[in-house]
Amino acid sequence: MATDNDLMQKIISLCKRRGFVFQSSEIYGGLRSAYDYGPLGVELKRNLMDAWWLDMVRSRENVVGLDASIIMHPRVWEASGHLAGFSDPLVDCKVCKERFRADKAPAAAAGEAVVLTFADKGKAKVALGIVAKQFEVELERRGAQLVGAVAGDRGYVCPVCGSPWLSDERQFNLMFRSSLGPISPMSAIAQALEAGEFAGLGGAELRAKLEAVTKDGAVYLRPETAQAMFVQFLNVQQSMSMKVPFGIAQMGKSFRNEITVEHFIFRSCEFEQMEMEFFCEPGTDDEWMEYWCEQRMAWWKRYANDPSKFRLRPHEPDELAHYAKGCFDVEYAYPWGFGELEGIANRTDYDLKKHALHSGAKIEYFDPQQQKKFVPYVIEPAAGATRGVLVYLLDAYHEETVDGAKGPETRVVMRFHPTLAPIKVAVMPLVKKDGMTEKARAVVEAFLRRGINASYDEQHAIGRRYRRHDEIGTPWCLTIDGQTMEDGSITVRDRDTMEQRRISIDAAVDEIQELLARA
Amino acid sequence: MATDNDLMQKIISLCKRRGFVFQSSEIYGGLRSAYDYGPLGVELKRNLMDAWWLDMVRSRENVVGLDASIIMHPRVWEASGHLAGFSDPLVDCKVCKERFRADKAPAAAAGEAVVLTFADKGKAKVALGIVAKQFEVELERRGAQLVGAVAGDRGYVCPVCGSPWLSDERQFNLMFRSSLGPISPMSAIAQALEAGEFAGLGGAELRAKLEAVTKDGAVYLRPETAQAMFVQFLNVQQSMSMKVPFGIAQMGKSFRNEITVEHFIFRSCEFEQMEMEFFCEPGTDDEWMEYWCEQRMAWWKRYANDPSKFRLRPHEPDELAHYAKGCFDVEYAYPWGFGELEGIANRTDYDLKKHALHSGAKIEYFDPQQQKKFVPYVIEPAAGATRGVLVYLLDAYHEETVDGAKGPETRVVMRFHPTLAPIKVAVMPLVKKDGMTEKARAVVEAFLRRGINASYDEQHAIGRRYRRHDEIGTPWCLTIDGQTMEDGSITVRDRDTMEQRRISIDAAVDEIQELLARA
Repeated sequence: MATDNDLMQKIISLCKRRGFVFQSSEIYGGLRSAYDYGPLGVELKRNLMDAWWLDMVRSRENVVGLDASIIMHPRVWEASGHLAGFSDPLVDCKVCKERFRADKAPAAAAGEAVVLTFADKGKAKVALGIVAKQFEVELERRGAQLVGAVAGDRGYVCPVCGSPWLSDERQFNLMFRSSLGPISPMSAIAQALEAGEFAGLGGAELRAKLEAVTKDGAVYLRPETAQAMFVQFLNVQQSMSMKVPFGIAQMGKSFRNEITVEHFIFRSCEFEQMEMEFFCEPGTDDEWMEYWCEQRMAWWKRYANDPSKFRLRPHEPDELAHYAKGCFDVEYAYPWGFGELEGIANRTDYDLKKHALHSGAKIEYFDPQQQKKFVPYVIEPAAGATRGVLVYLLDAYHEETVDGAKGPETRVVMRFHPTLAPIKVAVMPLVKKDGMTEKARAVVEAFLRRGINASYDEQHAIGRRYRRHDEIGTPWCLTIDGQTMEDGSITVRDRDTMEQRRISIDAAVDEIQELLARA
Repeated sequence: MATDNDLMQKIISLCKRRGFVFQSSEIYGGLRSAYDYGPLGVELKRNLMDAWWLDMVRSRENVVGLDASIIMHPRVWEASGHLAGFSDPLVDCKVCKERFRADKAPAAAAGEAVVLTFADKGKAKVALGIVAKQFEVELERRGAQLVGAVAGDRGYVCPVCGSPWLSDERQFNLMFRSSLGPISPMSAIAQALEAGEFAGLGGAELRAKLEAVTKDGAVYLRPETAQAMFVQFLNVQQSMSMKVPFGIAQMGKSFRNEITVEHFIFRSCEFEQMEMEFFCEPGTDDEWMEYWCEQRMAWWKRYANDPSKFRLRPHEPDELAHYAKGCFDVEYAYPWGFGELEGIANRTDYDLKKHALHSGAKIEYFDPQQQKKFVPYVIEPAAGATRGVLVYLLDAYHEETVDGAKGPETRVVMRFHPTLAPIKVAVMPLVKKDGMTEKARAVVEAFLRRGINASYDEQHAIGRRYRRHDEIGTPWCLTIDGQTMEDGSITVRDRDTMEQRRISIDAAVDEIQELLARA
């Protein structure tokens, strides 16, 4: 466990030091909801998402792409059920005032003795007073702890102090709400207040009135990309003359106002998804489910050093969303245990029918071969792009002891699959003279013309440059040295084996392209 | 003018029919703020943005990328001035109730006679009554018009009915506001109401109190991508050991609550930008300004059929943002006249200094060669990616009369530059038999393995397939026919000339790759 925690700390530190991932708005103390991708992180994320697009869209005749807006019509979320049901149960601790998710709080059976723990004696004394005064219970203080409390029938206690004195659970919708158009909700409320519209209202009535006053123009940031594929099903199917079975794929940002953000980029409020809705004839859905589970598992493993860390886990019946006929999670063995990376769900005809009902549009498919109409079933492989980045960062991290100039030293290597590596090849002049820099720059140019991301690097001693490229995962380093100037040969150094061999400078681009294609 | 309007209508219609651009949430009546990119639109937009990234980031040693979150720390917008100053002047018409932007309303000098125009006689009668009763002015009705009114000293009238009876101007902030964290602004207001905190308040005091109550957790969707490059300047510079002059580039979505959305995807509330901040030593900024103006103009023209439609226009002194030392707009001759496509501004050290002041971070650069510290100046080429898509759609649209099966017919060709074309090459079996389909599919596979977006197409007669690919801008069509099966040759048809020639099937991928590279 210590090692696993260690690994996360090492990844986070390397990510900041080497320009992969920074905390959002760090100079302002950071924002807990999101992360920024630095120069190398952008490339890693782009490479992963491009690989998904190539595999899921471009390589398949029966899958096409979509890029819909983040702010969709609010009725989309009414139809999808997100407005009514996409919420977490929130609770306030009446002792330490922490606000937390009931479903993530530590369990405690009714009647079980619980100990309240605080940061220091002073805070414990204050809490002792609160409990005595508000709940008329006398606890015993032992240093920063209070003993003598007993869990109620809620089944859980406060995750911070351990108190069983909690507010009622209330549903907190995870969608980010905003307002579109020239009327701000604040001025609508101000006007209603001035008109006396809230007079005498309280509790649920007051809240309902506030909702009613601000309903005009209320919009939401999408909590998933998927709904756009249902809403645009007809436009896509008709404009592209698609025949069922076919899929619509989309990559992009989604937003969830998560109360608990955790594990670096694993769970954040702003994240990227890669989702595909595959429309098929009812009755063929089980076969397609199997097909997509197999395809998606194979895809994730293709870029991994350790494919054994991925597993496919069927949902238990009580885990299933109400609309789903079946669901499998692609899980990865994160340092804190197995967790979700992609969900593959059989959503049946639930979504298309809901949107048909709410919009009044006739959403169905006419099969020209069978001369019949039906509403397609949907198999949805919904992957986390941001989580994918974390998975391949974890998978790539490797330390080893090697002989250094001053004895044994630790070499850190990010063993990214060449397809994912931010920089494919670094080209270096051994020294900054004798025409080596010009030659190296010309080689970089030749790579870029082929669309291969090459980097020119002349700073510091050659050994330090190699180590830097090991740490950012550059698969190959090409070095221009004295011999190059004589016989036109350059060295190719392999990131993982550190072996060097000489090849002709004229063949370098072809050779690396071939290595990339075969990777 | 009729032809120009025509052109926009043709583009909008083609975009929907062929799967380039759909109205957002169309089945729900659409959302005026945004558009969705269909299967071909996604590829066109990706190709454009990838071309920018390749030119601005990958090909340049001194420019690196960034991909920051859309929701940044709210203090970023305090420092940048967006919270206080990023607003439009809004006005309500007291006659027809239209809410509009004062700075976009039709001009009318004080004392000028104005005519009010309504949809029908009935509406004009109602307006006549309003004007008589509320403003005590007797106008004369002529059908659906009212005459006898005179413009006031506001300098403009209502853009819808022409009335000079208008509300005061008020500043409307263009940023989309939302809320992060477990406290919703609605419940904060409800609690404050129940606690009587608004009692006796009205007007500005009430509005200030509402702001204060909802300030916790208030966040904004970024109205531009640029600020992230200033906020992350230190992290990027240090992690990548960048030496001034260098640039940080970012592509992505931005959001502005525009009151007036117009001209299809030209102005929408949700749009994509491609921005770069180039940090240089004060004193060298004028040179770099010239350099980037030249670079960016050349880039836009490179992909255009008609480069003469682009122009570089220096801002007049009264157009300049208060922080800018100079600014040039890259403009395009849209059907409605010249309009902005990219702005290239000298932002001086304004932004870095503002963020240093507001965050307390020491944002400066130490020049190791000169052994001195300074705050860099910034040249910012800020391009509209969404506008770029519109520009190249307009530039590509071409109609011509050709000989068809039944006499002369109109051929519509989207003459996209091959780099931008959604599909680079279509591979077609002449007929669906004699092994032609298998051969065609194998050729498609070979293209995809090289990363070239190829499409297999077997539907309908060959002539119809050619026309379809003309209309979506596929530069080359390869056809497998009877002769292919005998001698291994296939036809290559050029989109623009419609000329066909035979080449060896084995050389097809190399030949198209070469044509793409040379394009």
